[in-house]
Amino acid sequence: MAYLNSKKVNRFKCTDKSVHLNQVKYIVLVNLKFLFQAKYIFLIGSVDFGLIGLAVMGQNLVLNAADKGFTICRFTVAVFNRTVSKVDQFLENEAQGKPIVGAHSIEEFCSFLKHPRCIMLLVKAGEPVDQFIELLLPYIEKGDIIIDIDGGNSYFVDTNTRYERLKAKGILFVGTGISGGEEGARHGPSIMPGGNSDAWKHIKHIFQTIAAYSDDKPCCDWVGESGAGHYVKMVHNGVEYGDMQLISEAYDLMRRGLEMSNQEIGDIFEQWNKGVLNSFLIEITCNIFRYKDDNDEYIIDRIMDSAGQKGTGKWTAISAFDLGVPATLISEAVFSRFLSNMQEERINVSKKFQRLNTKYTGNKKEFICHLEQALYASKIISYTQGFMLMKHAATNYNWKLDNSSIAHMWQGGCIIRSVFLKEISKAYLESPELENLLLKPFFHNAILTAEPSWRKIVASAAEMGIPTPAFSTALSFFDGYRSEHLPSNLIQAQRDYFGAHTLQLLPKTSNTASQEAKNVHINWTGHGGRVASTLYTA
Amino acid sequence: MAYLNSKKVNRFKCTDKSVHLNQVKYIVLVNLKFLFQAKYIFLIGSVDFGLIGLAVMGQNLVLNAADKGFTICRFTVAVFNRTVSKVDQFLENEAQGKPIVGAHSIEEFCSFLKHPRCIMLLVKAGEPVDQFIELLLPYIEKGDIIIDIDGGNSYFVDTNTRYERLKAKGILFVGTGISGGEEGARHGPSIMPGGNSDAWKHIKHIFQTIAAYSDDKPCCDWVGESGAGHYVKMVHNGVEYGDMQLISEAYDLMRRGLEMSNQEIGDIFEQWNKGVLNSFLIEITCNIFRYKDDNDEYIIDRIMDSAGQKGTGKWTAISAFDLGVPATLISEAVFSRFLSNMQEERINVSKKFQRLNTKYTGNKKEFICHLEQALYASKIISYTQGFMLMKHAATNYNWKLDNSSIAHMWQGGCIIRSVFLKEISKAYLESPELENLLLKPFFHNAILTAEPSWRKIVASAAEMGIPTPAFSTALSFFDGYRSEHLPSNLIQAQRDYFGAHTLQLLPKTSNTASQEAKNVHINWTGHGGRVASTLYTA
Repeated sequence: MAYLNSKKVNRFKCTDKSVHLNQVKYIVLVNLKFLFQAKYIFLIGSVDFGLIGLAVMGQNLVLNAADKGFTICRFTVAVFNRTVSKVDQFLENEAQGKPIVGAHSIEEFCSFLKHPRCIMLLVKAGEPVDQFIELLLPYIEKGDIIIDIDGGNSYFVDTNTRYERLKAKGILFVGTGISGGEEGARHGPSIMPGGNSDAWKHIKHIFQTIAAYSDDKPCCDWVGESGAGHYVKMVHNGVEYGDMQLISEAYDLMRRGLEMSNQEIGDIFEQWNKGVLNSFLIEITCNIFRYKDDNDEYIIDRIMDSAGQKGTGKWTAISAFDLGVPATLISEAVFSRFLSNMQEERINVSKKFQRLNTKYTGNKKEFICHLEQALYASKIISYTQGFMLMKHAATNYNWKLDNSSIAHMWQGGCIIRSVFLKEISKAYLESPELENLLLKPFFHNAILTAEPSWRKIVASAAEMGIPTPAFSTALSFFDGYRSEHLPSNLIQAQRDYFGAHTLQLLPKTSNTASQEAKNVHINWTGHGGRVASTLYTA
Repeated sequence: MAYLNSKKVNRFKCTDKSVHLNQVKYIVLVNLKFLFQAKYIFLIGSVDFGLIGLAVMGQNLVLNAADKGFTICRFTVAVFNRTVSKVDQFLENEAQGKPIVGAHSIEEFCSFLKHPRCIMLLVKAGEPVDQFIELLLPYIEKGDIIIDIDGGNSYFVDTNTRYERLKAKGILFVGTGISGGEEGARHGPSIMPGGNSDAWKHIKHIFQTIAAYSDDKPCCDWVGESGAGHYVKMVHNGVEYGDMQLISEAYDLMRRGLEMSNQEIGDIFEQWNKGVLNSFLIEITCNIFRYKDDNDEYIIDRIMDSAGQKGTGKWTAISAFDLGVPATLISEAVFSRFLSNMQEERINVSKKFQRLNTKYTGNKKEFICHLEQALYASKIISYTQGFMLMKHAATNYNWKLDNSSIAHMWQGGCIIRSVFLKEISKAYLESPELENLLLKPFFHNAILTAEPSWRKIVASAAEMGIPTPAFSTALSFFDGYRSEHLPSNLIQAQRDYFGAHTLQLLPKTSNTASQEAKNVHINWTGHGGRVASTLYTA
């Protein structure tokens, strides 16, 4: 059977032996005119892959794939959508003349695909993914591949579950992170696939062809088993929250602190985009500050300061808490969005507490140089925390994550793409077991250079009354991370005092024998505390 | 049957009609000598309540109850423990001569209790709670009460589940938070019961008798339905993490910043304990700094700076993320404990990044005054966030939380007890629907007074290179909370730019008609962005 990429074909059976594909059983035609007009003929069981879900991201990904491919016959793609009319609409418009075939049922969709079937789901995360898996199961077989592309951001925990469930049925499940928005999907996104590694050899060519490229290498590689792909994408998004928060704090310091105009702020971002901060987000920020409405007024001032979110930043923070990793910057970025949504409360509070030291009295140009350095140093901390989180996740979930490869995947196509990620990729390529980025000369030097400026910015913001939760937490984290001794000995003493939680006591200084710290409970009050607490916890 | 609080009794049946209790069926005696020596006789079906779990907290709670009570016959308590030998051991020692009876099986334990049975579990949180519930079910009946006292800190989500499951069986489940450590349990803890409200009339007298008192009122009242009691206890612990972190940051600033001795630091805490910071935690901190080992050396310097935790702080933070509440201070406190545990990494990093501006050059006495104010203001923010979190939890879980009552429960007996909580209780008593504490004159004035000092401390810490994650996040939160306009308009612009997430656009300034903000997608680049994203999220 063959289908034309036109809705007007009807069907009839035939056995056209001139078509060189073993699976061919039928050819579907009514009007031969269409056959000759058609650019592509799709043979039953011959289509390279299928995609379900024709929202913008899905459409763009299909168009991307259909435009690429190295053979004379480009990638052929079958598409399906729950609202079937969207299939026809897509074929008549965007997909016109491309090697894309539409299916009007799941059964038909599955019949188009060559073996092993490679089926991408680009539907809303959560239940819809499970619903489509259920719908697909009767029409697919062992060895077939279902790929959940998280256009809607699947929770990696769900991916772990689906991976196990489908593995038991012999179906290879892949959870694939994707970043780059609509534009990325159309022209080359960052793709982070993980799941059943047996699937990789079948989908590698497709994914690496449609992905973005950076330094002539695709921004797509196998991430790891089960939910690893979605996890890495989640951390990508967490880091993205952090970057956006840092940029917005810099904006606030320029706007409220230095009282700069939108034009001036845009100029600074343009300038920064030529330096160490060069990145997609800085670039679009510059464009945003330049954008005017049809009254010739800057649109940025008309945008409500209530920031939305879809949950991936929150998940990243929760995972950090679950794994015991201090991913403070991402958390503060998420909390800042929550605070931005409390508009009514903020307005009430703002009436009671005026900002006093409103104007920055120092040298503005110098301040902006400090600000660039503070942003850069904070960004380094944010990425350090992000990779720290992935390291703990890898240990916890038994994934083998290649940090250099992950940094490369983020180098192009995605929202956080930046020059800076090349250095991270390089650092981990040189030292795959690197404990943390700060120990590498490049980042070590960058932090040392930025440090005085960074302190200056955090201190000035505190004095000026401008909130810099992300800048501040980055600095506090750095100061804590490079502290041989933290004041947490006091916390342990307190816990042992009120809850008999015990503490680790170092040997007495006068004791020459080298001894290990011992777990003890101290009888602080002289009464009570007969035994160590085994139950009461705080 | 009657039991003596001595292990040496044996059993025989009798019908002693002189005992005025209907349930009496047997009296158990062998050696009459013991009967006359015995202080208490326990009648089958007459014991006030039972407690399972004889670790320190359980023992102390039983002894507390046995010592109190208003009738001639004090509260009688039946006890049981999985390791039964512990029951006898307890009866022979701590419980000797008190109205406490031991059971050697669950069946016997249940038979002792009057109706409706009131059974407290003080066992490890998690599975052991469910296991004991299963063991109890065959021997109890509709209307009986099972109370999970979270000595081991039960997760409120589990409490919600248990509440529903037991409600279906007609059993009244109560999840009760308790704080005060061993000492509190023995002499009067803070008790936060929630769950099936039908149980309250039966347990109120017991709980309010054994609880701590403050201003002549028990630090125990009904919190709310299902998991409300455990939730409020969880937030209590989260706030406790915050208080401890703030105190340890103050310690670090005095130690590394001002290079003060332990004696001097202890003196400051003693002084602070006479002022606005007067609290249990400041009091014990002072004692900790004074405590010397038998070499006459301060023990604080020998305690490892790796702080433990049992999860309640983490749960509080996760709940804040789930409910969309910026509980930044608790989160930073939890993260700081994580960081404290990364000792090896910290030592490695500390070798690469020396602290430069090591010495504080200003006036030390003034600095300490600023520090007290900074600690106070940060504490106000922490409690503001804590009550904000409970407000959102109440809405989300459909609980009616009385903030004044909660603050009162925390006023005495528990770890965070302080003078300051009286003001919170008062504030919410005056204005039960108060949006947030900062709007009340007492806290408004406290913040305004502290503000310059607070800014000074955060700025100095940043300059000195001493980590103050909790002080800093408190200030950033305050500066954000009192911002009529946050820079999150930029975040919305970015999200709409790369992901077509739409944003809310305010009317043009030249447009005189008062219009609402509209949800729109801006075609930033002039190409693409045909529709708003419904799938791609970031």
